Amino acid sequence: MAEEKPLILVTNDDGINAPGIRALIEVMSSLGDVCVVAPDSPQSGMGHAITINDAIYCNRIKEASSEFEEYSCSGTPVDCVKIAVSEILHRKPDLCVSGINHGSNSSINVIYSGTMSAAVEAGTLGIPAIGFSLMDFSYEADFNPGKKFIKKIASRVLQNGLPQGVVLNVNIPKLKASEIRGIKVCRQANAHWLGIFDKRTNPLGRDYYWMTGEMVNLDNNNDTDEWALKEGYISVVPVQFDLTAHHAISDLKEWNL
Amino acid sequence: MAEEKPLILVTNDDGINAPGIRALIEVMSSLGDVCVVAPDSPQSGMGHAITINDAIYCNRIKEASSEFEEYSCSGTPVDCVKIAVSEILHRKPDLCVSGINHGSNSSINVIYSGTMSAAVEAGTLGIPAIGFSLMDFSYEADFNPGKKFIKKIASRVLQNGLPQGVVLNVNIPKLKASEIRGIKVCRQANAHWLGIFDKRTNPLGRDYYWMTGEMVNLDNNNDTDEWALKEGYISVVPVQFDLTAHHAISDLKEWNL
Repeated sequence: MAEEKPLILVTNDDGINAPGIRALIEVMSSLGDVCVVAPDSPQSGMGHAITINDAIYCNRIKEASSEFEEYSCSGTPVDCVKIAVSEILHRKPDLCVSGINHGSNSSINVIYSGTMSAAVEAGTLGIPAIGFSLMDFSYEADFNPGKKFIKKIASRVLQNGLPQGVVLNVNIPKLKASEIRGIKVCRQANAHWLGIFDKRTNPLGRDYYWMTGEMVNLDNNNDTDEWALKEGYISVVPVQFDLTAHHAISDLKEWNL
Repeated sequence: MAEEKPLILVTNDDGINAPGIRALIEVMSSLGDVCVVAPDSPQSGMGHAITINDAIYCNRIKEASSEFEEYSCSGTPVDCVKIAVSEILHRKPDLCVSGINHGSNSSINVIYSGTMSAAVEAGTLGIPAIGFSLMDFSYEADFNPGKKFIKKIASRVLQNGLPQGVVLNVNIPKLKASEIRGIKVCRQANAHWLGIFDKRTNPLGRDYYWMTGEMVNLDNNNDTDEWALKEGYISVVPVQFDLTAHHAISDLKEWNL
C-alpha cells in the first residue's frame, strides 16, 4: 500500500500573490500534498493579530482539478492558519510553513512578523511549523538560492518532528547559491527597533505620521541569528510561545507581593 | 530639592474611552506624572501588530492645563507606545502600564493581546512595563477591587525596576475585594485556542465567517496563572521577548543541517 503523502499547509504574510509564497509552494509540492491558505492582501507587521470584530471571507481560488488547493482569506496570517485547520483541511496537517517572507524576520523582528506568528499559531495547535524569510524586501527578490536549504529543513522536520512547543524561525541571507555557507542553529539576537516617525501634514491641515525605524543590535556574540546571517549562513532559531521568563520567577517571589 | 515624580506612560487595547484605562489612570496618578497615549478605537486581539502601510494620526485630547496629557492615536497599541516614546514624551518614561484590559490575558492569551504587546514593546525599549487585565469582558466591569493590588505592583516596579528583558503580565480575577486572596507569581499555563468559525451567508450570497473559539487548558499544575486565578489570586507572570527555545538548541544542532 502506498504511504500517504504528508499534508502541508502553506501560508504567509505578504499575501497570496507574493512571489515568496510561490517559491515555497514549489518546494513543498516536492515533499507532500499542499494546501495554500494565505491573506488576500499584504499583512506585513501584523504580528499575532486575529480578526475578532469583523467578518472573514475565504475564497477557493483554484479548481479542485488543480494539483493543490488554494484559498485566499481576508484575515490576518494567524486567521489563515486557524481557518485552514478548523474549516478547510480534512485532517491535521503534518507541517505548516509560512513565507518565504520578503524581508528578514531575524532577532526581534520575530515579534512583529505575521509570517512567524502564523507558524507560532500552528505550533500552538500541535502542528510542526516553520517560518522562512529572505533578507530581501524587493518584489523581484531571488528565492532560488534558498530553495535546497528550505527543502532540507522541511524534510527533517517532517521526518523528526519538533519538540513540543517549538517552531522554527529560518532566515536566509541575500546571497548567491555558491555564497551561502550552510545552516547554523542560533539564538535570537538581543536587538530592538527605535521608532522613527516621519511627520507630515495632510491637505486638510491635519498632522499625521509614517512609521519607519532603525533596528539596533546590542548583541555581538557569535551564537546569534544576526551573526550567522552576517557571516553568510542560513539561521535557524527555535522559537517558543511559552513566554514565561522562568529565570525571573524566584526573584519576583522575593518581592512578597 | 523636591524629587522629580516618576513619569508613567499609560496605554491599552480597548481604546482611550474604555472604563478600564480610566481606572488605571486613576491609580497611576497617585504614583507619578501620567501621560496617556491610547488607541482611538478598540484594538483587542491586535497582538504585536504595527502600522507600516498607513498614516498614523495622533491627537491631543486634553488641554495643557489638565493634570495630565492625553493623546488618542489611530494606530495599534504597539504603535501607541512607539509614538509616545519617539514623538510625545520629553524623556524616557519610568514605567509603562497597559490596561486595565476588559477580559483575561492569562496563559496563551498573552500572544494575541494588544494590551500585553504594548507592554512588551515598552520592554524592548528598556522601559519597565506591566500589562493589567481583569477577567471580565463587560463594559460595566468593576475595576475597583483590583486597584490596591495594581498600585502595590506598580509601586514595587517603580522601586525595584524589572530584570532586563522582562515585563509583567498581571491578571485579576472577577471577585469582590474581600474575596481576592492575594498575589501569586506564576508561569504561563500551557493552553491553546481551538478556532471555532460561525459560517454565514451575506445578503449577496457570499459565505463569510465569524471567529469564535474555545480555550483548552492542558496544564493542571498549581504553579500556573490559570490555577492562581481559579483559586482567587491575582496572577503575575514575568514575560520575556527573547522567544528562543534555548533548551531546543542542542537537539537541533544534532540534526547536522
